[in-house]
Amino acid sequence: MVRWLESAGGPDWAGGIGAGEHATDALPVVAADPGRVHTEGRIARAVVENARDRVAALMGTRPRQVVFTSGGTEAANAATWGATRARPGQPVLLADVEHSCVRDASERLAPVVRLEVDRLGRIDPAVVVEAIERCSAAGSPPALLHCQAANHEVATVQPMADIVDACRRHGVVVHVDACASAGHLPLAFDELGADLLSVSAHKFGGPPGVGALIVRRGVRLESLLVGGEQERGRRAGLENVPAMIGFGAAAEELSRPGVLEAEAAAARRRTDRLLEAATVVDGVHGVGDPERRVPHIVCVTIDDVEAEPVLLGLDQRGIAAHSGSSCSSESLSPSPVLEAMGVDAERSLRLSVGWSTTDDDVDAFADVFASIVAGLRQLRA
Amino acid sequence: MVRWLESAGGPDWAGGIGAGEHATDALPVVAADPGRVHTEGRIARAVVENARDRVAALMGTRPRQVVFTSGGTEAANAATWGATRARPGQPVLLADVEHSCVRDASERLAPVVRLEVDRLGRIDPAVVVEAIERCSAAGSPPALLHCQAANHEVATVQPMADIVDACRRHGVVVHVDACASAGHLPLAFDELGADLLSVSAHKFGGPPGVGALIVRRGVRLESLLVGGEQERGRRAGLENVPAMIGFGAAAEELSRPGVLEAEAAAARRRTDRLLEAATVVDGVHGVGDPERRVPHIVCVTIDDVEAEPVLLGLDQRGIAAHSGSSCSSESLSPSPVLEAMGVDAERSLRLSVGWSTTDDDVDAFADVFASIVAGLRQLRA
Repeated sequence: MVRWLESAGGPDWAGGIGAGEHATDALPVVAADPGRVHTEGRIARAVVENARDRVAALMGTRPRQVVFTSGGTEAANAATWGATRARPGQPVLLADVEHSCVRDASERLAPVVRLEVDRLGRIDPAVVVEAIERCSAAGSPPALLHCQAANHEVATVQPMADIVDACRRHGVVVHVDACASAGHLPLAFDELGADLLSVSAHKFGGPPGVGALIVRRGVRLESLLVGGEQERGRRAGLENVPAMIGFGAAAEELSRPGVLEAEAAAARRRTDRLLEAATVVDGVHGVGDPERRVPHIVCVTIDDVEAEPVLLGLDQRGIAAHSGSSCSSESLSPSPVLEAMGVDAERSLRLSVGWSTTDDDVDAFADVFASIVAGLRQLRA
Repeated sequence: MVRWLESAGGPDWAGGIGAGEHATDALPVVAADPGRVHTEGRIARAVVENARDRVAALMGTRPRQVVFTSGGTEAANAATWGATRARPGQPVLLADVEHSCVRDASERLAPVVRLEVDRLGRIDPAVVVEAIERCSAAGSPPALLHCQAANHEVATVQPMADIVDACRRHGVVVHVDACASAGHLPLAFDELGADLLSVSAHKFGGPPGVGALIVRRGVRLESLLVGGEQERGRRAGLENVPAMIGFGAAAEELSRPGVLEAEAAAARRRTDRLLEAATVVDGVHGVGDPERRVPHIVCVTIDDVEAEPVLLGLDQRGIAAHSGSSCSSESLSPSPVLEAMGVDAERSLRLSVGWSTTDDDVDAFADVFASIVAGLRQLRA
């Protein structure tokens, strides 16, 4: 039995566990502080580094480039903080289809220059080049450019490689928000050449409360959270060891040969069917890029019906779906993503599938969706 | 069975769980996003609010004042960010015995004015008043004053009520870092009258990855993490529901009549014995306030011996202890806490007990400590 005589990350929350001279089972590992010199701490450190190895492998980078955070929102805030602190007053470039955390983190720290998107939500790399050159010509080269790998609401995949390439050629720091695509589409961070990339574990099978900011080799970034030497001084605060274990496990599963591709193919097949079942209903329209999209999300707008009662109708039939953005559920304001795309709808219905979704689940939606919409239209008439 | 057709906080990590028309067992609750309108989301929301109620009860405040964070470090960074953003350029007052996250978060955002401490690590309320008046007379009233409830390394309890009172009388925003004392000493936030208070769940039986910033009613604070409307717009990012459940459970247990007091009495008895067993050895000295200290921590310095080999010696005998500060384990620099107190030692040995620590654990330390120190001194001689 280990005798805990240390409290921070020790017995305060680890109490009563441990077997043998030193603990070797899972519980004491998640209960120890990886920063300590005692055996339990060193086991916890090994566990954290093992999780880091797995996350790095899925992201196509080296473990040292992985900085664990409390999630995608913190990662995007940290990327924006670090890049703008290094170049105060210089503009940040982004499209309004970016996630609200990218937009809000940027707007309060720097002047923001908007990148337009087309009706599918795509950023044209030529628009990126033009915006960078315009800022530079005005004497204010960009501090940072954000580019989402894929949209969180309408699923559109961006021409990320071309955009990153344009930024690299112009010496502009580029942050890729990969929260909606990581674990669903292959990712090769080192090959891509981006400076910063955000990822969230819970979006692809990991637990909530953990994510990562991937930082390109050689890029130095002031931390958003300071006051501890965790994460090689790049993110302060006791490591969330149990969540990191889950993150690593999800990454490991998706890194096994063929697994991500098989999951993506199954998801694509199911979302294609969901889209078909939805759009056979009059006045229901798919939004976003119908071809180049993340496989697990489809998005539709519904003429003459609000998204909320549709969600409640689906819920009554045991189907959990969502409208609009991931982080604005409590908001009733129109979707900035749809607005940026010039889509004439306030809110969208977003349908997505995960590793546990079955064909039966898709059938259940197909069975009830038309009648829910018809019923709501009848109420309205 | 619930059919998940939504990914963010949905099936991507919740897949395959749920029983009955809607999920009612624990797993789907931690798997759902509390921001959603579907049944699982509403259950998760209820679970989060239940945890918030319990944390609020332990802290002596209303649930609406509790903002969940990823831990104490984020809470202290957020307090500093919010207060300094509201009063840019104005100084922050703190003592060097504050935790590194309080010091580092302040130093990069504002000019810092130091508050001296005595040899026990105590801040004199008269020193606080004098510093506030000096800043104000110089035309730069403080943006914020930090005051730890108790020290994380030497256990000294501060005259918090008097310091908070001084700040309130002078109209200075005050942040109490209660990470080392919450759950170990009674706390009545609303009565105390502080503006902001940080707390960390893992320090008193909760899981890692969660903490809270308690914000006084009427105080408006710009968020550190932005881009989502979680926590009533005060902290963006998907809620870490499982960690919040654990935080709430620990808070509930400690709120039951007599539990905190009984735990504190047992901890005090054990740390008194640890201190006695340590200081009977020649050249081992207790540091910090011997009387007014948090019950679960004692701290000693050891003449002529480094802390690290003592920790390794204890570890070899199955005893997990720690030296120095909570968040600087990987650092070899001297303890700023000891320096601020004028203690002539680079590092301290910090012994702490938790709810699971037994009298046998304390005996085990008493049995081996003297011989470990003697052995190391012999090696050195």
